[in-house]
Amino acid sequence: MMFLQFKQYLYTMQRALCVAVFLFVAAMCPKVIAAQHPNLVITASDVVAMRQAMTQPGLFQDAFRAKVADVDQLLLEPVDIPVPLHAGGGYTHERHKNNYKLMFNAAVLYQLTGDVKYANHVRDMLLEYAKLYPTLPIHPQKKSSNAGKLFWQGLNEAVWLVYTIQAYDAIIPALDDATRQTIENGVLRPVALFLSEQSPHTFNLVHNHGTWATTAVGMTGYVLGERDWVEKALYDLEKSGKGGFLRQLDELFSPAGYYNEGPYYQRYALMPFVTFAKAIEVNEPERKIFEYRDGIVLKAIETTIQLSYNNLFFPLNDAIKSKGIDTIELVNGVAIAYGLTGETGLLSIAQQQDQILLTGDGLKVARAIEQGLATPFDFKSIAFGDGADGMQGAFVVMRQRNHGDQALVFKATAQGLGHGHFDKLNWQFYDTDEEIVSDYGAARFLNVEAKFGGRYLPENKTYAKQTVAHNTLVVDEISHFEGITKEGNKHHPELLFFGNHERVKIAAATIDSAYPDTAFTRTIALLNLAPEKSLVVDVLSAESDSVHQYDLPVHYQGHLIETNFELNTQLSALTPLGQDSGYQHLWLKSSATPKGPLAKVTWLNKNGRFYTLTALQSQGTNVLFTQLGANDPQFNLRAENAFIFRVANAKSHDFVSVLEPHGEYNPSKEYTLTGSSQVVDLIHQRHDEVQVIEVSFNDGSVYVLAFHLGQESEGMHAFIHKGQKFQFSSHFQLFDIQ
Amino acid sequence: MMFLQFKQYLYTMQRALCVAVFLFVAAMCPKVIAAQHPNLVITASDVVAMRQAMTQPGLFQDAFRAKVADVDQLLLEPVDIPVPLHAGGGYTHERHKNNYKLMFNAAVLYQLTGDVKYANHVRDMLLEYAKLYPTLPIHPQKKSSNAGKLFWQGLNEAVWLVYTIQAYDAIIPALDDATRQTIENGVLRPVALFLSEQSPHTFNLVHNHGTWATTAVGMTGYVLGERDWVEKALYDLEKSGKGGFLRQLDELFSPAGYYNEGPYYQRYALMPFVTFAKAIEVNEPERKIFEYRDGIVLKAIETTIQLSYNNLFFPLNDAIKSKGIDTIELVNGVAIAYGLTGETGLLSIAQQQDQILLTGDGLKVARAIEQGLATPFDFKSIAFGDGADGMQGAFVVMRQRNHGDQALVFKATAQGLGHGHFDKLNWQFYDTDEEIVSDYGAARFLNVEAKFGGRYLPENKTYAKQTVAHNTLVVDEISHFEGITKEGNKHHPELLFFGNHERVKIAAATIDSAYPDTAFTRTIALLNLAPEKSLVVDVLSAESDSVHQYDLPVHYQGHLIETNFELNTQLSALTPLGQDSGYQHLWLKSSATPKGPLAKVTWLNKNGRFYTLTALQSQGTNVLFTQLGANDPQFNLRAENAFIFRVANAKSHDFVSVLEPHGEYNPSKEYTLTGSSQVVDLIHQRHDEVQVIEVSFNDGSVYVLAFHLGQESEGMHAFIHKGQKFQFSSHFQLFDIQ
Repeated sequence: MMFLQFKQYLYTMQRALCVAVFLFVAAMCPKVIAAQHPNLVITASDVVAMRQAMTQPGLFQDAFRAKVADVDQLLLEPVDIPVPLHAGGGYTHERHKNNYKLMFNAAVLYQLTGDVKYANHVRDMLLEYAKLYPTLPIHPQKKSSNAGKLFWQGLNEAVWLVYTIQAYDAIIPALDDATRQTIENGVLRPVALFLSEQSPHTFNLVHNHGTWATTAVGMTGYVLGERDWVEKALYDLEKSGKGGFLRQLDELFSPAGYYNEGPYYQRYALMPFVTFAKAIEVNEPERKIFEYRDGIVLKAIETTIQLSYNNLFFPLNDAIKSKGIDTIELVNGVAIAYGLTGETGLLSIAQQQDQILLTGDGLKVARAIEQGLATPFDFKSIAFGDGADGMQGAFVVMRQRNHGDQALVFKATAQGLGHGHFDKLNWQFYDTDEEIVSDYGAARFLNVEAKFGGRYLPENKTYAKQTVAHNTLVVDEISHFEGITKEGNKHHPELLFFGNHERVKIAAATIDSAYPDTAFTRTIALLNLAPEKSLVVDVLSAESDSVHQYDLPVHYQGHLIETNFELNTQLSALTPLGQDSGYQHLWLKSSATPKGPLAKVTWLNKNGRFYTLTALQSQGTNVLFTQLGANDPQFNLRAENAFIFRVANAKSHDFVSVLEPHGEYNPSKEYTLTGSSQVVDLIHQRHDEVQVIEVSFNDGSVYVLAFHLGQESEGMHAFIHKGQKFQFSSHFQLFDIQ
Repeated sequence: MMFLQFKQYLYTMQRALCVAVFLFVAAMCPKVIAAQHPNLVITASDVVAMRQAMTQPGLFQDAFRAKVADVDQLLLEPVDIPVPLHAGGGYTHERHKNNYKLMFNAAVLYQLTGDVKYANHVRDMLLEYAKLYPTLPIHPQKKSSNAGKLFWQGLNEAVWLVYTIQAYDAIIPALDDATRQTIENGVLRPVALFLSEQSPHTFNLVHNHGTWATTAVGMTGYVLGERDWVEKALYDLEKSGKGGFLRQLDELFSPAGYYNEGPYYQRYALMPFVTFAKAIEVNEPERKIFEYRDGIVLKAIETTIQLSYNNLFFPLNDAIKSKGIDTIELVNGVAIAYGLTGETGLLSIAQQQDQILLTGDGLKVARAIEQGLATPFDFKSIAFGDGADGMQGAFVVMRQRNHGDQALVFKATAQGLGHGHFDKLNWQFYDTDEEIVSDYGAARFLNVEAKFGGRYLPENKTYAKQTVAHNTLVVDEISHFEGITKEGNKHHPELLFFGNHERVKIAAATIDSAYPDTAFTRTIALLNLAPEKSLVVDVLSAESDSVHQYDLPVHYQGHLIETNFELNTQLSALTPLGQDSGYQHLWLKSSATPKGPLAKVTWLNKNGRFYTLTALQSQGTNVLFTQLGANDPQFNLRAENAFIFRVANAKSHDFVSVLEPHGEYNPSKEYTLTGSSQVVDLIHQRHDEVQVIEVSFNDGSVYVLAFHLGQESEGMHAFIHKGQKFQFSSHFQLFDIQ
C-alpha cells in the first residue's frame, strides 16, 4: 500500500514537472513547430497564442492541464488497433472510437507542448492502422447500406477520418517522409477513397451521412494536397453540384438554419458542417464559406441553441432525451461562432457547457468569459420554416417567462426523412424546468449493447415513431401517412400564421395529406395573463366527408391527481388499447365518459406545480387513460402515461382545450397552494371565419382569444360575442372582457 | 400599466425607506422594548445582538430584509380568522396555518424593528381568535381520537399554540393589560386547557402528538406565569412522571438519539423537543435540560442529520420521500445545536439548508458561516440501537465513498408504532446521489386535498405498509405480524453484530416473531474492494419446521437493461400477482425460472450507472417481475418496479446475492462503459458456524467474506475453503484470495 502510494506520488510529481517544463519550453520557443501545419480547425498561429495562454493561470490553462492529465494516463496503455468485430457499444467499436479521440488529443498536445512522445504515439497508432486497414473487408456487423470497415456503419468511419486527419495534420512536423508515405498510403488515402469513390451513394447523398463523408474527404484533401478531393467534397464526385457539401448547406437547412431531421440530428449534423466550414475558411478564405447562403452555418449554430429548453434539446423525431447543449458538437459550434462573431450571448452558453476547447476559438471563449463578457443568451419565440425554401411547414417555438420559464413547441414540420416521426401538428409544453406535455423521443439506449446493440430498438418503429406516441390527431387508429416514411417525405403541413405579441404567442397550421380523406388544422397559443397566470390554448379541428374515429392523446409527465369525472379504472386485468400503429403497446388503465360540459384532468409534475387540462366535452367523447408497456417482451419501453380524448363516430370534430399551470406542492415546507384548477368555464364559437375561445377563471377574470385562419388577414375582423362587438386586424387578438 | 409600475415603484421606495428607518432606530435605541419579554426561544439579549447585526451587510441582514419583504406583503391582506371547516390542504386549514406563521414572523419583526404595526397586526389577529375560539365545537372534519377545534387534528392545534405563544410573548411589550386579559382568557388559556386538561389522553401520551401538546402548554405556562402548567408539561397532568416531556425524552429516543417512528417522524418530532428544551434552558437553566439523559436532545439532532442521504431522509416507515434536511424543524435544530456546541460540521448542514433564522442562534450560525468556519459534516457508519434501552434491534447505516457516495441502510428496528411498516430486516441502497434499491415510503400526497384530503391514502395501509412493498422476506404472501401494528409493537429483531472496518461495513440481525413458525436472519455488508469497485453482500436465511412459500422482493430504481435468463413476459394481458397483503397491487409483468447457477438482473439508474444483482440460484427458484398499480382506482400509486425471488415449497432457504454498481451510461457524451456485470461467480458455504461468501470478478480477483453469527465471537474461527485454511477473530473478515 505504502509502495503504491509512493509510486502514485512519484507519478504525480513527474507529471507536474513535465507540465512545468512544457510551459517553460513553450514560452521560450513558440516557433519550434513548422508554420504550415496544422492548418484545419487549429492553425499555426492559433498554436502560438495557445502556447502563450497555457503559461497563465485561467480557464485555458486549466483545460490544458486537464487534457495533459487525461492523455498522459491513456498513453500508459499499449496501442490497441483490434480487428473490427463489434457493433456500437461493443469492444472494437468503442476502442476505435477511443483511438481517434486519443490521436486527436495527443496531436493537439504535441502542438502545444512540442513533446514528441505525443506525436510518436499518434504515429505508432497510425502505422498500425496503415497495416490493418488494407486487410479489412466490410465490417461483419454491417446493418445498413452505408457500411464501414473499421465500424459497422460508414458514418462512424467518416467520423474516424474527421478526427484522424486533424491528428495527422498536427503531427506532420514530427514525421519523416517515409513514415508519411506509409501512413498516407496505408490508411488515410484508402479511407478517404473508401468514403468517396467507393461509397458514391453516401458521399453524394444530401443527408448528414453525406456531410460527414464530404467533410472527412475534403479535410483530407487539404492536408494531403489533393485539391480535387476538396472540389469533390464541395460539389460531389462528378463535381456536378447536385450533391456535396454546398448542396448539403443549400438543402439540409432551412433559410433560418433549421435542419430537416429535427433538433437532435441538427446537433449531430452540426459537427461536420462547422468543422469543414472552419477548415475551408482557414485554407481558402476567398470562398467566404461563412457568408455562404446568407451565413447559413452561423444560423444553424444559433438555431441549434434555440431548439433547447433548460439545456436539453427538444426531443422531437428520433432523439435521445438527455442530449443537451453541452454536447461536443455544440461546444465546437459555439466556439467557432464566437470566434467569428464575438456575440457575447454565446458565452453564457459556453459557461453552461463548461468545456474549453484547446483551439484558437476555444482560447477566445476562455478569455472572454474571464473578462466577464458573457451576457444571457436570447431565447426567442420563433417559427423556423422547414425545408430548403423555408416553406415546408415550420418548427414553432413559443416562449415566455411566467412564474418560471415556459416553452410551447408546435411541430408543423415536414417529415424529416428516416428519423422523422409521424407526428404532424404535434405539440409539447415545458414549464419551470420540466417537460409537462411530452414527447417520447426515440426508443433507444445509446451504445448499451444489451439493448439491441445500442441501436434503435424495435419499439422505436412500433411505438415511438407512431402517431399515437405523440400529442396529435390519430384517425381510425392509423398513423399519419400509414406510417410510411416515403409517403411522409412527399408532403408537409402549411403554416397558416405565427404571431408573437407580448401576451400572446400563437401559431396555426393545417395538413390534408396525412390521411386520405381527413384534413386537420391546429391553432395553438401561449398566453401570458394576469401576473403569474398563463395558459396554453389548443384548438384542433378534424374535417372529413366520411365518419371516423378521432383520437387526440395528451402525454403528460407527472402523477395523476384528479379528474372532474368518474373513472372506470381496470382494477385486476389490463389489456392493450389496440392492435397496431403503437396502440398495441398501450395498456388501457381507465376509461371515462365525462358528463359535464368540461372535462378536467389534473396532474402534479416533479417541478412541484400542478397542471390541469380542461377540455370542452361533447356528447359521447370518451377519455382513455393509458400506460405504456404492453407487448414489450424485453422491457424496452418506459412506463409513460397518457390520456386520449376519443370521438368514436364523427365526420368533423373540434378538440378544444386549455392547459393551465397552477399552484405548488411543497412537501418539504409542508404546504400546498392552489391544487385545483382555476378555470371555471371554456367556450368555443365560430363567427364566420373568426373563431373565439373564451376562458373564465374563478377570480372572475374572463379572456377572449379570437383568431382568423383565412388568407386575407389584413383587414379588420369583427364579431359579436355575448352581445358585445369586438374587432381585430391581422390574425388574432386577446381581449380581457372582465 | 404605467400607473401600476409607478405604484410598484412607490411601494418599493417606501419599503426601502422603512427598512432604513428601522435600521436607524434599531441602532439608536436598542433597549426600547422591555427586557422581560421575549423569553422563550428568542430572548431580550438575543434581540439586542440581532438589532446590531441587522445594520451590517451579511447573511443575517439578508434574512431580515427578506422577512420584512414577506411579512409586509402579507400585512396588506385583511385579517381572516375563518370558522374552521376544512381538512388538511383545505382553505380554513391552510389559513389558520398561515395565520400562526404570520403572527410568529410579525412578532419577531416587532422585536427587531420596534415598529408597532407588526405588534398591532398580531394583536388584531389574536383578538379575533379570542372572539372565535370560545364559540368553537370540535372540528367538523375530525378523523382521529385526537381532534382539534381550529384544525381537524389536535396535533395541528398544538402546533398553532407553539407558534402563537411565541408570537404573543414577543408582542407583550406592546399590549395594555386589558388586551392581554382578553387574549389570554379568550384564546391562549382555552387552547392550553383544551390541549391539556381536556385532552388528557393525548397530553399524557408518550408519542410525538404528546410532545407537541406538552411543548405548547409548557411554553404557555412560562409566558403566562403558570408554573404549574410547566410542571404538568414536564411530568404529565398528574405530575406522576409516567407521561410528560421528560418521559417522552426518556422513551421516544434510544440512547443514541434514534426516534422510534423512524427518520421522517424523527425530523417532525424534533421541532417541539428542541423548541421546548430551548425555552426551558432560557427560563430555568438550573434544570440543565440539554444535559438530560446524557445530552439526548443534541444527540437527537445529530442523529436526524445522520439519517439522511444526499440531503433527503431515509424514507423508512411512513415518510414523504422529498423531505430533507432543509426542513424547518432541522433548521431550528441545527441552529440551537450550534448555539450550544459550536460544532462547525453543523455549519455545512446550515449552508445546505440555506435559511438563516431570526433568532440568537440563527445569528451565531450566520456569523460563523461568514467567517468561513464551516467544515464538512461527518456522516458515519452507525448502528442506532432502537428502543428506550437501545436494545430493541437497530437502524443501521453503512456508508463509504467509492466512485460516489454510497449508503446501505439495514432496518432491523422495532415496529415504530402506528407509522411503522411491516418491514423487519428490510434494506435500501444509495449510490452516486440516487436511490438504487428503494423503499416506497408513504402513500400520501401531503396536503393535496384531491388526494384523500392530503391524508395517508388507503393504499398506504393496503400497500405501502405491507411487507411485499419492502426488500425483505414475505412468507406465504402474508405480511410480518399479519400486518397488525399491535402485534408488531410487542416484538423486535435482535441485532447480532455490527462491524465497521475500512473495507467492510457489516450487520446481522434475526427475528423469530414476525411469523408463527418461521425465523429469519439477515447478514448484509457493504464492501470496498479494488479502486472504484464496491459490492453489497446479502444473505437472508429463512428457517421453519414446515413448508412455506418464501418471497424476497428487490424494489429497484431504474430501467431494466438485461437478465442472464429468459423472460416470459406478459405481452397482452396483466393480472395482479396476488389477492392480499399488498400483492393485489402488483401487476405480474414477467416471470422466469433461471437455469444457471447465477441469476442476474441489470438495471440502469438515472445517475447513469448500471447495477447488477447476482443471486445464487437454487432448483425451482422463480423470478417474478412486477409493476405497481393494480387495484388502484384513483391512480394513487406510483408505477414502481420490483423483481421477487420466489421459492415455492421449502422448509428452510438461504437467499444469497450481491449487488454490484458498474459502468456508466453517458448519452450526452455518447459513451457507455462496462454495461455488463463483472461478477462471474458467487459461492455460499457453511463451515459449522462460519458462513463464507466467495465472489469472483472477470478481472480474476476473488474475495471471500467470512462471518460468524454466534454469541461467542471473541475467539478465533477457522475454516477450510478450497483446500486453504483461513481464520479470523470476532464476527467477520474479508480475504483477498487472488
